[in-house]
Amino acid sequence: MQNKPFSPARPVYLISAGSVSGSKEKRGPLGDLFDFSGDDRFGKDTWEKAESEMQRLALGIALRKAELIDSEIDLLFAGDLVNQCLPSAFGLAGYRIPYLGLFGACSTCAEGLLLGALTAGTCARRTAAVTSSHFCTAERQFRMPLEYGGQRPPTAQWTATGAGAFLLSALPRDALRCGGGFVPRITEVMPGCTVDRGITDVCNMGAAMAPAAADTVSRYAASGGSLADAVIVTGDLGAEGSGIFIDLLRAEGIDVGKRHLDCGLALYDPETEDIHAGASGCGCSALVMAASVLRDIREGETGDVLFVGTGALTNAMASCQGQSIPGVAHLVRIHPVPRDQIREDGGI
Amino acid sequence: MQNKPFSPARPVYLISAGSVSGSKEKRGPLGDLFDFSGDDRFGKDTWEKAESEMQRLALGIALRKAELIDSEIDLLFAGDLVNQCLPSAFGLAGYRIPYLGLFGACSTCAEGLLLGALTAGTCARRTAAVTSSHFCTAERQFRMPLEYGGQRPPTAQWTATGAGAFLLSALPRDALRCGGGFVPRITEVMPGCTVDRGITDVCNMGAAMAPAAADTVSRYAASGGSLADAVIVTGDLGAEGSGIFIDLLRAEGIDVGKRHLDCGLALYDPETEDIHAGASGCGCSALVMAASVLRDIREGETGDVLFVGTGALTNAMASCQGQSIPGVAHLVRIHPVPRDQIREDGGI
Repeated sequence: MQNKPFSPARPVYLISAGSVSGSKEKRGPLGDLFDFSGDDRFGKDTWEKAESEMQRLALGIALRKAELIDSEIDLLFAGDLVNQCLPSAFGLAGYRIPYLGLFGACSTCAEGLLLGALTAGTCARRTAAVTSSHFCTAERQFRMPLEYGGQRPPTAQWTATGAGAFLLSALPRDALRCGGGFVPRITEVMPGCTVDRGITDVCNMGAAMAPAAADTVSRYAASGGSLADAVIVTGDLGAEGSGIFIDLLRAEGIDVGKRHLDCGLALYDPETEDIHAGASGCGCSALVMAASVLRDIREGETGDVLFVGTGALTNAMASCQGQSIPGVAHLVRIHPVPRDQIREDGGI
Repeated sequence: MQNKPFSPARPVYLISAGSVSGSKEKRGPLGDLFDFSGDDRFGKDTWEKAESEMQRLALGIALRKAELIDSEIDLLFAGDLVNQCLPSAFGLAGYRIPYLGLFGACSTCAEGLLLGALTAGTCARRTAAVTSSHFCTAERQFRMPLEYGGQRPPTAQWTATGAGAFLLSALPRDALRCGGGFVPRITEVMPGCTVDRGITDVCNMGAAMAPAAADTVSRYAASGGSLADAVIVTGDLGAEGSGIFIDLLRAEGIDVGKRHLDCGLALYDPETEDIHAGASGCGCSALVMAASVLRDIREGETGDVLFVGTGALTNAMASCQGQSIPGVAHLVRIHPVPRDQIREDGGI
């Protein structure tokens, strides 16, 4: 059982998503796809409060799109990168939904979708998964004050400013209210193991996370999970991590090069933004998944997606204590179901 | 559905628990019940590494008691109070178990049991929930360096040094291997909503958390959940929070005074330890539940237990930004099943 993916006990659909981005992300190639973009402060007097506001807005947008209110959601999974995940706690406190806090670093989006799918597949009917990151909260907490002007090596990534909220439902009538010719359905999930290859460079998160991503995909394939006809969308390996990821899998005889996309390489235009190895952060994969990938699924522009959210488990003190940086990566398989195959009397 | 408890789809048993404590906890009334106690350093050169070591030991003990190895566990839920929950990530990295990080502050024990039960009830067979806290990591991170000698008001609580690990299984044969005449079974769980009553005193976590605990118990009772013949065990409300909790429920016509115990008031002897309002921390409830409450259940010394793990969602920066302290509390109902009622051919 441990090395097999889990399937929700009944069909679980991703019925809506809300995406709220900062200004840099708005300027990027996906800028027109975000539901809302702000000036990075979102009317608040601190960066942490701004990040909370993004989460609040993102979940509100997702609810509105699904024509639901908070009392109709049974469970809410959320987390972020800030110490004790406070942006999530404060940003979502106004929604009266049972709240389960997560910490998976940048893999939180996948972790929330994974747990949201497993619980909506059984005990709950509708669940929500929300996550965010903010460049300024991350820089302050993990690295240096912005005014310091610290130099970033080529392997460094840029923490995205953005929040994504996802609603999952086991009710076919919810699925039938979605737009588009296809409805995204989570068919399998594979939680990842922590993998530590001894990377200690805090400016090379891609290298820290790639082994975990490769490990999860490898375990999925070994369990019989199909990689054919699916595109693998990693969270934020960036340029450095993506190359390592592909190499590690190739060494096991798994060639994913032509079927791999990375959210960290999709968020910004490298021609106009100096973001070195790409975007990172919980918000990176959340924005790309919410605004772009799910849209492509709904419009029938892609087949199955294997979303592999990647996280680096570290904090500002760990490197001072000589610790390396473990990674973790969770896999969520999303399948486009033609709308006309969903029966309203199916399910619960 | 939102205001009804969830029940695992099949019987889920708490088949073993491991408890590892620090020295102060060893001196307390439950000291002889812990599986292992150390000198707070556990052979490590930093407090954070010591906390990791406690988690590693606790899970190892739980596995050994259940005669299982890590590859037989399908999911591992873990978290702690340290930034980015690193003690959990590092402490458990040596176990090859799919890892899902949680952040629920001091409610993490209940959150892990809740998710462990829901997943073991469906897709997984065996799950694990681990959590910890350490007085020194908490003081350094949330308050002052130990050498500062800061004064603690009467409402302050003492963060416990300890780790608890719990194994849950849907396999009757696992349950039958447990010691004692009764096997603890998780029959219902009720995830809590965040509740913020505007408490800003970081030295009064009891007041911050009590409203959330009362809210969860109230919702449980309103949904038809039975409080009669059950003892409510809160995580770490302490003296201040326990009084508020009882008062809030009494105002709703729910009288739990005679059926309430608090882990924060069970861990230390107030006659010999100057711990003001009681113990706190993820490790507080984990130690008491693992070493004492589950033992009482197995020995038939108590009936149903409603474990209400309580958490205060705050960090060192939040009060500087004028934020209040929301609380969250998750309920887990544990029922003692007579061993002779469990059939080996039942379940999966």
